[in-house]
Amino acid sequence: MIKVNSGFSRLKSNYLFAEIARRVGEYKNTHPDDALVDLGIGDVTLPLPSAVVDAMHHATAEMGRKESFRGYGPYYGYNFLREAIAENDYRGRGIEVGADEVFVSDGCKSDCGSIGDLFSEDTRVAVCDPVYPVYIDANVMDGRSGVFDDSKGKWPGIDTLYCGPENDFVPDVPSGDEACLIYLCFPNNPTGASINKAQLTAWVDYALQTGSIILFDSAYEAFITEELPHSIFEIEGAKKCAIEMRSFSKTAGFTGMRCGYTVICKELMVDGISIRDMWIRRQATKFNGVSYITQRGAEAIYSTEGKGQVRANIDFYMRNAARLREGLIAVGYEVFGGVNAPYVWVKTPSGEDSWAYFDYLLNEKGIVVTPGSGFGDAGEGFFRMTAFGSEESTLEAIRRLSEKCGHVSSSSGLTT
Amino acid sequence: MIKVNSGFSRLKSNYLFAEIARRVGEYKNTHPDDALVDLGIGDVTLPLPSAVVDAMHHATAEMGRKESFRGYGPYYGYNFLREAIAENDYRGRGIEVGADEVFVSDGCKSDCGSIGDLFSEDTRVAVCDPVYPVYIDANVMDGRSGVFDDSKGKWPGIDTLYCGPENDFVPDVPSGDEACLIYLCFPNNPTGASINKAQLTAWVDYALQTGSIILFDSAYEAFITEELPHSIFEIEGAKKCAIEMRSFSKTAGFTGMRCGYTVICKELMVDGISIRDMWIRRQATKFNGVSYITQRGAEAIYSTEGKGQVRANIDFYMRNAARLREGLIAVGYEVFGGVNAPYVWVKTPSGEDSWAYFDYLLNEKGIVVTPGSGFGDAGEGFFRMTAFGSEESTLEAIRRLSEKCGHVSSSSGLTT
Repeated sequence: MIKVNSGFSRLKSNYLFAEIARRVGEYKNTHPDDALVDLGIGDVTLPLPSAVVDAMHHATAEMGRKESFRGYGPYYGYNFLREAIAENDYRGRGIEVGADEVFVSDGCKSDCGSIGDLFSEDTRVAVCDPVYPVYIDANVMDGRSGVFDDSKGKWPGIDTLYCGPENDFVPDVPSGDEACLIYLCFPNNPTGASINKAQLTAWVDYALQTGSIILFDSAYEAFITEELPHSIFEIEGAKKCAIEMRSFSKTAGFTGMRCGYTVICKELMVDGISIRDMWIRRQATKFNGVSYITQRGAEAIYSTEGKGQVRANIDFYMRNAARLREGLIAVGYEVFGGVNAPYVWVKTPSGEDSWAYFDYLLNEKGIVVTPGSGFGDAGEGFFRMTAFGSEESTLEAIRRLSEKCGHVSSSSGLTT
Repeated sequence: MIKVNSGFSRLKSNYLFAEIARRVGEYKNTHPDDALVDLGIGDVTLPLPSAVVDAMHHATAEMGRKESFRGYGPYYGYNFLREAIAENDYRGRGIEVGADEVFVSDGCKSDCGSIGDLFSEDTRVAVCDPVYPVYIDANVMDGRSGVFDDSKGKWPGIDTLYCGPENDFVPDVPSGDEACLIYLCFPNNPTGASINKAQLTAWVDYALQTGSIILFDSAYEAFITEELPHSIFEIEGAKKCAIEMRSFSKTAGFTGMRCGYTVICKELMVDGISIRDMWIRRQATKFNGVSYITQRGAEAIYSTEGKGQVRANIDFYMRNAARLREGLIAVGYEVFGGVNAPYVWVKTPSGEDSWAYFDYLLNEKGIVVTPGSGFGDAGEGFFRMTAFGSEESTLEAIRRLSEKCGHVSSSSGLTT
C-alpha cells in the first residue's frame, strides 16, 4: 500500500469560517426576516476598475484572433507586467528591483504555500500570533511543524511571536539565534497593525545575524496612509534575507481574478545557492504562468487611469475603516488597526471570549464579525471587522452598535 | 543558516527547449533570410473559439459592475463548471462522476506538481521512458528520487517503464509487487501512442493488487479518433486506484488561459484516508481557485456552439497530424502516433542520434523538431513533430522532407 504524507493527519481542523457560516445559517433560519450586516469575511465588494475591465476586453478580443492569439506565456509572467511592477512598486519608490526579480503568480496564497518547497523539512518556522492560518497549515503539511503538543498547546517546529496591545501587535525580535523562516505580514491581517522602519530594520538585522529568511507578506501595503515602509526592500540589507509577496486581490479588487507576485532578489543566497534560481526552477516545474488576459488587467492597474481608480477604491475602503474605528471608539470599544489597513481589531468590552461575543453581536445586533481566537491564542478576547463592506453596511453596523439594545430588522430597508 | 531543500541540487539540468532555442538562434543568425518551419514546440496556434471569447467578454463585463461582481470564488472551482465537466466529460460517457469529485485548477502541470504533496517522501515512483520531464523533476524536488546514480544511469527512487516500438509505446505491467505512484499519460506526449481498454485494465488491476495509485494524465483525450478509453474511470475498479488529470490547454486552445481539472473519486482511499479529502485540504491551504472569467470561458466549451467550435479545431489539428504521418511515411520514415494524438514520433532513418538528426533537419531542411532523447533514454533515435502548426507550415515541412536535398528559403513566400 502506498503511504500518504503524514503531515496532513497532523493538521488541526480549522473550523473558523465554516463555524461562522454554520452559526449565521442557524440565525437566518430562525430569523428569516432579519437583515444581517456582514463585516466578517475579508473580501472586496467594489467592482474591478474600468481601466482593468477595458484592458481585459481588449486582451480577450486578441485571444480570439489568429494574428494576436497567445499560447503558453512565460512561467514567471509577461515582461510588460514584471516591468510595470518593478517600475511602479519599486523603482518609483527608490528601490532598485529588476523585472527579472519579480515573479508573477496566481496570488499570494499560492506563493505562500509553494515557497515552502525551497526549504528543508527541518527548517524552523516562526509565525505571529494571531496569524493568517495558512502560514501554519502549509508548514504542517510540509512536515516542519512536528506533531502538535497538546500539553504545551504548540507545534514543536513552529515558534509563535506574540502580538498584542503591549507591543502594538508588532512582534519583538527573539533573543535566540536559531535560523528560521520568519513569516511577517504588515500591514497585518487580522490585527490591522502596521510596522515602522525601526521595527522592520530590527527584524532584517536579526535575519541577517541568524541566517534566517523573512517571508514578508505586504498584500496590504497600498492601504498604508502614514509614513511607513511599503516594502521590506526599503530596509538596508533586506535583499539578502527577505522574500516579498504581494497580491492585487485587495489593492485592485482581484480576489476573483487571481494575480499577485513574489519578489526575490539576486542577492538572496543561502550557502552559495541562489534562492531566486531555486524559485525559477520550482515555478518552471510546477507552475505554468498566469492567464494573459489577467496579466493585461493587472498591467492596467499601473496606467494613469488605473492608478486613479485603484486609489479611489482604496480611499473608499479606508473611509469605511475610519468610520468603523471612530464609531467603535465612540461607543466605548478599545480599537486597534484601521489606520494603515482595511481591518479593525477590537477588544471584547468585558473580557468575553471571542466566540461568546461573536454570538452576542450576531444574535443581539445582527452583525457578523470574525472571532479573534480563530487566528490563534493571542486573538482570544478580540474580534475583527473589515472595511471591505459597502458604506451602507458600515454605517448600519455602527448605528446598531450604538443602540442600547436590540437591532434593526429588514424593515430598516437595509439591503445586504 | 537556514537550509534549502536538497532535492533541488539533485535535479538534472534539462536543457531540452533551451538547447533547441540556442541552436535555432544560431541558425537564424547565420541564415537571416531563411524561413524555418517550427513543428517543435507543442503549443496551439488557432485562436480561442468564439463561444469562449463571448463568454469571457460577458464575464469581464460582469466583473466591472457592482451588482454582478464576484470576489473570492470556491477553491475547487465554480459549480457551474464542475457540473459541466462531470456531465459532459463523464456522465455523458456513462461514467458516474459527481461535480464534487471534479477539482478545477490552473492546469495539469500545476496539479501534477501539487499532487505530490499528498504522498510520503519515500513513495516509489514509476514513469514511462520517454516521458514529459516534469513528472520526474517534481519528484526529485519532493525528495522521492534519491540521488541520480550515474553508473546505472537512473534515479534509485524512480522506476522507468520502457516504451518502444516493441510494446507499441505502452509500458508493460511490472512483475514486482511494490506499491508506487504510477504516472501514465495517454494519448501520450511525446510518442503520440494511445492505450486500449485491455492494456489500461491491466494497469488498473496491477494498481489494485499492489496498492499503487495511477496518476492518469489524459490531457489529449479529445484527440482520440479510434475506439479507445477516454477516461481511466471507464475501467472497472479505477475509482479506487486512480487520479485523472485533464487540461483545456490543447483541447480548447487554453495554453495561455490556464485552466484544467483533476478528478479524484470518493472511493480512492489509502489506509482508510480519503485522498479526495486530502486534496480538498491541500487546495484550500495552498491554492485560491481560478479566475471567474477563465472559468466562464471554460464553461462555454460545453455549450452547443462551443462543442462544435472545439471539435472543428481538433479536427483541424488532426488533419495536420494525418498529413504529417502520411507525408513522412511516403518519404520512407518509420512513424508512430498521430492517429489519436496531435504528435508524431519518428525514427531517425539510419539510427542517427536525436540531436544529430535535429541538426540535419535544421541545417539542411530548415525544419525544427524536438529531439526524442530530451524525453529520456528510450527517446534516443527518435524525434517528435507536432500537429499544432498551421496547415501551411505542415504542408511545407512535408514538401521540404520530400525534396532530395536543400530546402526552401524565405523566397518560397512561407510566413512562419
